This record gives sequence, C-alpha cells and structure tokens, in this order.
Amino acid sequence: MVQDMRSVEVCFSPELFQDVVTTGDFIVVLVDILRATTTICTAVGNGVEAIIPVATHEEARRLKSQGYLVASEKDGVQVDFADFGNSAFSFTREAIGGKTLVYCTTNGTRALEMAKSASSIAIGAFINLSAVTEWLAGQQKNVVVLCSGWKNKFCLEDTLFAGALTRRLLDTGLFHSECDSANASMDLWNLAESDVLGYVEKAAQRHRLKKLGLDDVIPYSFACDQVKVVPVFDGKLIKGTWLTHRPFDLRPEVRRRSA
Amino acid sequence: MVQDMRSVEVCFSPELFQDVVTTGDFIVVLVDILRATTTICTAVGNGVEAIIPVATHEEARRLKSQGYLVASEKDGVQVDFADFGNSAFSFTREAIGGKTLVYCTTNGTRALEMAKSASSIAIGAFINLSAVTEWLAGQQKNVVVLCSGWKNKFCLEDTLFAGALTRRLLDTGLFHSECDSANASMDLWNLAESDVLGYVEKAAQRHRLKKLGLDDVIPYSFACDQVKVVPVFDGKLIKGTWLTHRPFDLRPEVRRRSA
Repeated sequence: MVQDMRSVEVCFSPELFQDVVTTGDFIVVLVDILRATTTICTAVGNGVEAIIPVATHEEARRLKSQGYLVASEKDGVQVDFADFGNSAFSFTREAIGGKTLVYCTTNGTRALEMAKSASSIAIGAFINLSAVTEWLAGQQKNVVVLCSGWKNKFCLEDTLFAGALTRRLLDTGLFHSECDSANASMDLWNLAESDVLGYVEKAAQRHRLKKLGLDDVIPYSFACDQVKVVPVFDGKLIKGTWLTHRPFDLRPEVRRRSA
Repeated sequence: MVQDMRSVEVCFSPELFQDVVTTGDFIVVLVDILRATTTICTAVGNGVEAIIPVATHEEARRLKSQGYLVASEKDGVQVDFADFGNSAFSFTREAIGGKTLVYCTTNGTRALEMAKSASSIAIGAFINLSAVTEWLAGQQKNVVVLCSGWKNKFCLEDTLFAGALTRRLLDTGLFHSECDSANASMDLWNLAESDVLGYVEKAAQRHRLKKLGLDDVIPYSFACDQVKVVPVFDGKLIKGTWLTHRPFDLRPEVRRRSA
C-alpha cells in the first residue's frame, strides 16, 4: 500500500537540498513565506503575465533599461531604480495585470537553480495553500518542500507552511512521509495553527521585518487561500497555473484586514 | 539585561554550521544521540583515558596495528578489524577503563573539524544532560548546539536533545535565545518530553536501527543523567571533564532497564 503512495519530504534550507534529494522524480515546492513566495503568489494571482526571476541587482537594472517592470529590494528596502520592493501589497492588478515582471531575489533565484533537478518547481505560500495542495494531488510525483530559510538558516515561518502543506497532502490519502523534517514541521504547525500570528511572534524574521517597518504584510502572509493559482517555474519564467478558469482579485476585505 | 546574557543557537545539520556561526566566541556542543555522542559519553563515563576520533576505516586500521583499542562500524555493523562497534553497551569499565580508544566516525570527525572555530567543543547527549548544562553555565561563552543529523539531514532525536538543553540553559537565567531553530527544538521537546520513547517511534533513524537489530540502545539513549561527565575535544583528543571528583559506573538497574 505505502509503496504505491507518493512521498513528501521537507528540506529546511537550500544548503540541505542536495542531501535530501535522491531521485529526479519529484516536484519541488519552493517556500519563502516572508516574503518572496507570498509576493509571487500575489502577483500571479493578480494577473501578472510572467515573472522573470533574476539573482542580481545588476541584472534587474539591465532589464529595467529594456523597459521591464522591476521588483528589487535590499535588506527589505526597495532599491532606487526599481518599480516595486518586496511587499505583496504593491502588486495590485492595476499595477501588474497582463505585464511581465522582473523579480530580483538572490536566495530565491539560487533556490530555483538548485531545484532544477526536479521535474517541476511550484511556488507555495499560505495564500495559495489549497491550490498548491490540489495541484500536487493531481500530479503523479513525489514532493519536496524546499524552505528558503533566512540566509540559509532554518526559519519558523517556512517550516510552519511545510507542516501545513504536508498535513494537507497526507490528508488526501495519496501521500506518505517518513521524513523527520516533515514530521517535525507538522508537529509545529499543529501547535501553531489555532493562533498562528501569536506563534510567529517569536520568529526571528518577524522581528527583523518589524525593525524595518515592513511587518504590515504578516497577517496577510499567514492567511490561507487568498489566491487560487499555482505559480510554476519553467526554467526561465514563472507563470500561473489556474485551478479555476476565472482568475479572481484578492478579496478586498482580506486586504483591509491584513493591512 | 538581555545583552549581558549569553546566546544559545541550534544548528540542525553540519551543512548549516557556517551559516549559523558569526563569531568565534562560543562553545559548540556536538550531538549525535543515535549514536556517537551517547557512546562517547558512556565510554568517557566509564573511565576511558582518552578518545582519538578518526574519519576513516583506514586510519582506524592503522592505529589498530599500533596496538590501540578501536571502535569502528559501517552502516551500524562492527567492522572486522575493530574491537567494538558503536553500541554504548560495549564500552564497559572493564573493557575500556584507563585505556585510549580510537573511535572511527566519519560524520562525527567531520563535525569536530568544522567546529574547530569554536573556543571549546563539548560532547552532549541525554545521558549527560545535567552535566553539560552545569558545565556550560560555568563557562562565559555563547553556545551553539550542533546536531549531527543523519547524512546531513535534520533528525528528530538530535533536535529533541537540542530542545532539552536549550530549555535547561534558559532556565538557568544566564542564557537567552532568538534562534528559530532553538525555539522549534524547545517546542518539539515540550511535546515529546512526557513520552519521549513514544514520540521517537516516528523518527527515521529509530526505524533504521530497528531494521539492523540495533535498537536495543534506544531507551538508554534517551535516559537523562546517567553520567556526570562532559567529554571535551581539545583538537586531537576527547577527554572527560568531571563535575564531581568521583567517576561513577553506569547504574546497573539502568543498564538492565534499558537492555
């Protein structure tokens, strides 16, 4: 029975990826809750045509001079030549609908590069938790949840998402897991779930964002199922895979509540 | 207040060590509950004069030919030329008291090498939890708990020890922690503590040992405070730092209960 099921593994840092992965027959779900993958899900959910991930500010600046919209930040602050920083709230349908966006993320791009041994790379966040679960259930592949961490360190918020996604996947009855990281993630998510914002009060990144005045995005980043789209990276571009045929805008009441 | 206190950080894998550590002013506590550090604490607790850690079977064989007692295993099984495998129960006072032991551990030796930027390297396990807590409290240094993991992956049993030690250190009032790994470890330890053997039923390494018939050592490996010694690595040798002046044997009733 179990051997017919698909496996879920969780990787707490890109540094550990090469040690976790033993087969090419898997999908990577890339996670960076605060903030890249929440932002990408928002932009794709709000109708961006495609996202070009780039690793350096130089590359972002070069593409800006070619006329692209550019999102780029350093230590949480928007860089001078960019159109956007890294706040999910900037990526409204009005601002980015139908356009191609260059998104500069050093760690994110590195993680995407590392994950190229996967058969697909999807972008996961609490705001598309159900969508990514449903999409993974429909693929005939094992799953590796790749947490970005913070400067390669374990981080609590990505781990909580890994736990939430693992539990959802196991609940479908299609997946099993014998991975210690997946088990630990689920236990932490079980502890946190009833008051996730209270729980993440102790997360180091939450304090870093607060110091920068960028913590307004936190309630939104932990709100499940704001978008019904799974951003998928094809090796060059990130584009949305819709689970319904009608893209929908972020619900205004959630935006208000989260602001 | 907090800035006068010493910090505790937890590192879930040697692969992450260089990303965790930003200063040389710390002590590393190396952890490999199943099995190296539990075994080393047992051997030192039972009066071994010194342990020479080596990385390869070739080096272990060379030292065997010079007359040393050698502990060496591959995939959990004692290698042919060795006097001992890796089971804590082999290292009785009769077998190793007063002698120097060559201990072959590829990952352990690698972790010891990596940790050489620390001002000291101590060996931690549940069986010396109070001793290592007391010893660390007496040093004026920050602490990094370095989990060996399994083939560099996160593992549950080392994480539980990291959580137990972090909580003990914070309870002294001398330490603080803003490390997500330390917080997650403590939450997992809080979950596991009341029935740690039940909790580790799901640990992957527990199943690996069971398949090899080597899981007899598990109850002992999670029994707190069987030895009152802290093994410390001086760059070449591991020797015991005693917290009392009278080394004591493993209590026979614990050996029986654990067997």
